[in-house]
Amino acid sequence: MTITAETLDRSRGLVAPALRLAVERLDPFTRLVVSYHLGWSDEHGTPTVANPGKTLRPALALLAAEAVTGRPEPGLPGAVAVELVHNFSLLHDDLMDRDTERRHRRTVWAVWGDATAVLAGDALLSLAHEVLTEGESPDGQAAGRALAVATRELIRGQVLDLAFEQRNDVGLDECLDMAAGKTGALLGVSAAIGAILVGASQPVVSCLSRFGAELGMAFQLVDDLLGIWGSPEVTGKPVFSDLVARKKTLPVTWSLDHGGEAGRELAAWLRRDDAPTDGDLRYAAQLIERSGGRDWAVQEARDRIGLAEQALDQAGLDGGARSRLGEIARFVIERQS
Amino acid sequence: MTITAETLDRSRGLVAPALRLAVERLDPFTRLVVSYHLGWSDEHGTPTVANPGKTLRPALALLAAEAVTGRPEPGLPGAVAVELVHNFSLLHDDLMDRDTERRHRRTVWAVWGDATAVLAGDALLSLAHEVLTEGESPDGQAAGRALAVATRELIRGQVLDLAFEQRNDVGLDECLDMAAGKTGALLGVSAAIGAILVGASQPVVSCLSRFGAELGMAFQLVDDLLGIWGSPEVTGKPVFSDLVARKKTLPVTWSLDHGGEAGRELAAWLRRDDAPTDGDLRYAAQLIERSGGRDWAVQEARDRIGLAEQALDQAGLDGGARSRLGEIARFVIERQS
Repeated sequence: MTITAETLDRSRGLVAPALRLAVERLDPFTRLVVSYHLGWSDEHGTPTVANPGKTLRPALALLAAEAVTGRPEPGLPGAVAVELVHNFSLLHDDLMDRDTERRHRRTVWAVWGDATAVLAGDALLSLAHEVLTEGESPDGQAAGRALAVATRELIRGQVLDLAFEQRNDVGLDECLDMAAGKTGALLGVSAAIGAILVGASQPVVSCLSRFGAELGMAFQLVDDLLGIWGSPEVTGKPVFSDLVARKKTLPVTWSLDHGGEAGRELAAWLRRDDAPTDGDLRYAAQLIERSGGRDWAVQEARDRIGLAEQALDQAGLDGGARSRLGEIARFVIERQS
Repeated sequence: MTITAETLDRSRGLVAPALRLAVERLDPFTRLVVSYHLGWSDEHGTPTVANPGKTLRPALALLAAEAVTGRPEPGLPGAVAVELVHNFSLLHDDLMDRDTERRHRRTVWAVWGDATAVLAGDALLSLAHEVLTEGESPDGQAAGRALAVATRELIRGQVLDLAFEQRNDVGLDECLDMAAGKTGALLGVSAAIGAILVGASQPVVSCLSRFGAELGMAFQLVDDLLGIWGSPEVTGKPVFSDLVARKKTLPVTWSLDHGGEAGRELAAWLRRDDAPTDGDLRYAAQLIERSGGRDWAVQEARDRIGLAEQALDQAGLDGGARSRLGEIARFVIERQS
């Protein structure tokens, strides 16, 4: 087991019981829906073996608390809260994007309808704040503020994402800004909230926040690369999945902006509205490669991890938790799924 | 101007600028959508004369702070927060109920689509917590907790409401429980949050919370009565509007449970699925009257106001703000719209 796999495992061991206790408070129907969404049960409530996902966000919250105080436990309300907000956004995004599958299972709106997905997401967003206000930390209020600000950014990112679908002229800067909102903000607060809860100084909190935000950008770039060139057997998604949907991901947007002739060919391909064949998809992927979009995304992800590591160094922390945070950064760009 | 009209007016004067400042933080598109929803602008952003609604909830928050300390201002973050949560629930409920009009204007989902209504509601729920965490009160955390618990109840109420639409056997107790969640919880926290923010004692907070919750039940009963027998020119809704939708409101549910022969006739009428004529609607309204459902609801609303006033007396407050809270209770059962 790698250090990161072990870190994520240990984090899940702490977070899972606290998350279950929080979800227990919901009304019976919403509890069933959320248990299904989190992979704890099937749609009838029969327990299933959980596929908890990467749970990167709560791990960051716990490690930050540990890096400051030597103990992860004081970060626990923050870890639970960021995982709840992450799942609030998945429930609502799946509905808005009309995605019918997540982790090989039908999405909540596809099983129970729109209203249920709206309400289950609402319940998790509110529950995140409920959990945060109950901790013993006098800094719970500051943690709640950071979480609310990050959620506002997350919503801004999703608003931009939906608006971009209607446009053919989205530039790279706008696309990076959207990713900073949609992915960077919540990873930023995940890395900061554990330190906020243990009363770390403002400079430490803001270094950790930058660490998480840059990590989030790298995470998104790698996601976009895997959405085109990932192995379906590892990612669990169909081959070229993002190209099938003609999604204007970061490498695609780079190619459109800076890719010369191949970029213009790609733009023409994206404007087509017939269902792409396998050959079409291979052709589009080659255009992104030829125009330099793939290399750019690989390099940009590395650069972002470099910035993340710099921010982490500036936080001036040390010890095991500090090095585990660094390991997570490396894991983010090396992951295959 | 009645005392209550003057109280609501003064409350709006304090709350409106703070609410605008909060909404200013949202991304430009969400800001436009929320400004439209709140009646501040048309759908293109052109300012309009606001119809702010009754804004009962923020008035309660301010009066509670004033009743404890003599000044309404410390209750302001709570007043803004409950108004934001109320509007979050309106945005999402209109979407879930597929209501196309609110206060004579098209609802947000009807203008901009489902995703926009989801995101605007999300933004307001999160903003409520952002505002609460920024006040200077050391009790902001307790206020956030009370708001989150009330939101959980609000969601439980809406879950029940949607489930009841699929059933023909909903009993009065279930229906009262649903109303306690959907209407009572947020009015309860509205009356309590101003006192929480100024550090009032637990007994005072819990008396105010009960005051608001009973007021909420009375409010709902009066709403249900107006939805059947209200004057369209005053309520702004079509005549017999709740009967057109064959809604199982509290007076209807009472008639089904306790209304004897007329109640059974009403049950048969509710099971019909043809579009009701004017004569049908008058017939149904008469059945509710004959079976005693109208009288029951009038008396139950009075009883709830009695309980609200009792709770207010037990809080042991006095002064002008205390008597204004009493005035609001009387306004709730006397209102015609």
